[in-house]
Amino acid sequence: MFYRMIGAALIALAVALLLGPGLIRYLKKLHFGQTIYELGPSHQQKQGTPVMGGLMMAAGMLAASLICHPIPWAGGWDFLIPLLAVSFLSMAVGFADDYIKAVKKRHEGLKPLQKIAGQVIVALGFSVYCYLSPKVGSSIQIPFTGLEWDLGVFYIPLMTLLVIFIVNSSNLQDGLDGLLSTVASISSASWAIICMILLVSSGAVDAGDTTTIGVFAMSMTGACIGYLRFNRYPAKIFMGDTGSMLLGGGTVAMAMLLRQPFLLLLSFFTPIMSSVSVIMQRYYFKLTHGKRIFLMSPIHHHFEKKGYSETQIVSMYAGITLILSLIAVAAVCAVQ
Amino acid sequence: MFYRMIGAALIALAVALLLGPGLIRYLKKLHFGQTIYELGPSHQQKQGTPVMGGLMMAAGMLAASLICHPIPWAGGWDFLIPLLAVSFLSMAVGFADDYIKAVKKRHEGLKPLQKIAGQVIVALGFSVYCYLSPKVGSSIQIPFTGLEWDLGVFYIPLMTLLVIFIVNSSNLQDGLDGLLSTVASISSASWAIICMILLVSSGAVDAGDTTTIGVFAMSMTGACIGYLRFNRYPAKIFMGDTGSMLLGGGTVAMAMLLRQPFLLLLSFFTPIMSSVSVIMQRYYFKLTHGKRIFLMSPIHHHFEKKGYSETQIVSMYAGITLILSLIAVAAVCAVQ
Repeated sequence: MFYRMIGAALIALAVALLLGPGLIRYLKKLHFGQTIYELGPSHQQKQGTPVMGGLMMAAGMLAASLICHPIPWAGGWDFLIPLLAVSFLSMAVGFADDYIKAVKKRHEGLKPLQKIAGQVIVALGFSVYCYLSPKVGSSIQIPFTGLEWDLGVFYIPLMTLLVIFIVNSSNLQDGLDGLLSTVASISSASWAIICMILLVSSGAVDAGDTTTIGVFAMSMTGACIGYLRFNRYPAKIFMGDTGSMLLGGGTVAMAMLLRQPFLLLLSFFTPIMSSVSVIMQRYYFKLTHGKRIFLMSPIHHHFEKKGYSETQIVSMYAGITLILSLIAVAAVCAVQ
Repeated sequence: MFYRMIGAALIALAVALLLGPGLIRYLKKLHFGQTIYELGPSHQQKQGTPVMGGLMMAAGMLAASLICHPIPWAGGWDFLIPLLAVSFLSMAVGFADDYIKAVKKRHEGLKPLQKIAGQVIVALGFSVYCYLSPKVGSSIQIPFTGLEWDLGVFYIPLMTLLVIFIVNSSNLQDGLDGLLSTVASISSASWAIICMILLVSSGAVDAGDTTTIGVFAMSMTGACIGYLRFNRYPAKIFMGDTGSMLLGGGTVAMAMLLRQPFLLLLSFFTPIMSSVSVIMQRYYFKLTHGKRIFLMSPIHHHFEKKGYSETQIVSMYAGITLILSLIAVAAVCAVQ
């Protein structure tokens, strides 16, 4: 099962690396350059960089998950289908948005109501699936304690909100070259390691399902690292909503199937921070009739305005994510 | 034991972050600016950046290891003393070199013979310690197989060479802003996780000693991330031989105490690649009477000459290290 995970990382990495140059050429040819908002600090030179690079990761993750998942074992498909469904349907919403903006050249993209409707359908469907599945159910684990918290029927609305929140957090984090892909490569690695630890500690109990999640997590790590080859500063391609929603959807799906949504507060802290900074900024602005907490939100643009370079901010977010991901791994170890 | 590891990471991080600004000011005041060789591609602007930033990491690692190590348990000191001895004595050799260069302004630093003599003493002493220790011995594990390989008395010369090789590899890798500190933060995190997995899988067997190594590993991760705050591009401080030999010594000590030196080929691959590239370049140059394989060695300077920026190379090395570290973790899981 560990060899499958290694294989998944390497396959996803290879697919992303191999597809990259062709995809960049193809997207450029179709004039898929994203129109950069005037709002971002001095990003005008990024005009013309193709978006929808998330397709590169999607191809890697799909190939790796299908090739390496443990189908011969009991229940091999039980977790794979929901994982792929949540991540790829979330991606589809983002893709529609990117496509309308880039190809149809309508700057607004999807209407907000269309976007949120798409996300609600995915989130609600997945929450109901988990609630009804005998392998997941309505209980979630409380880190460090070994305790479970049965949310009962409230599981469905709360988790629906969680999925929407995480997918959009991931989307908000994606604003600097290599930022979200770096953070997601580390956080997905921590989910893979958590699966390994569960496998080592439990022996064969639900080994097939845990392996499925581990394979998916490793495919995300490999895909992110392959994609980073092209996305690191100065970026040759952007993942677009296509990519950010794929990563957000995949991450929240893993957390819920492992019944560990609280761990997202650790390993997915920086995307959540992006969301929270946007919310704080808006409320403060309304409350004070025009004052701002941050020079700009999401908070990574605040740091940019403060004079930090893109690569410095990526390095800072990576460091924070690495430390918090290690704590998440230790939290799982502590209750085995 | 997992809480100790978390504590170690956070203490080392905090110490490095708190000491950083003062240390930079102090070292600058003493005119500890390193004279940059003409050899490096276009690094002249780095003139005047203080070296010996490794002291920041050393302080963090020492504080965290002492505070968080499991002294009340059986054998609490058995592994801590050798870990600290190897890393800090390796550091002392590097420190002497830095000090002579920076303060005494003698560009050659330590004489090669003095340097290698210091390293041989540390390496030989530690190899003999491991050989004689009932907790380590002359057997090393072969990854993925669960097999052990008893080197017998050859353990001592082979491991002596290994320590010297790894310490110098680490030293050679340290040539770009944030490069070695990023790689070491990921590789040390993987050693910490390996300790966690051994603890989860073995229950209480040797829990004290494994915890000691895990605490040390996490302190290295925390210290590297704190140090990166100041070392990331554009660097305000360099770690110097002080830091690179500390990290190399600490890493090889962990690998040997865990009887897993082969895993260094995975998680410490990029520093080893630096060494190997230097050796290849020299032999090829001699064999062909003047031809070169790489535009410049170590190989990260080759990539620089090829037109990659410092941050791109760091990102690439980080990605490679992350993937290979995950494989190392999986290798340990596979035989539990």
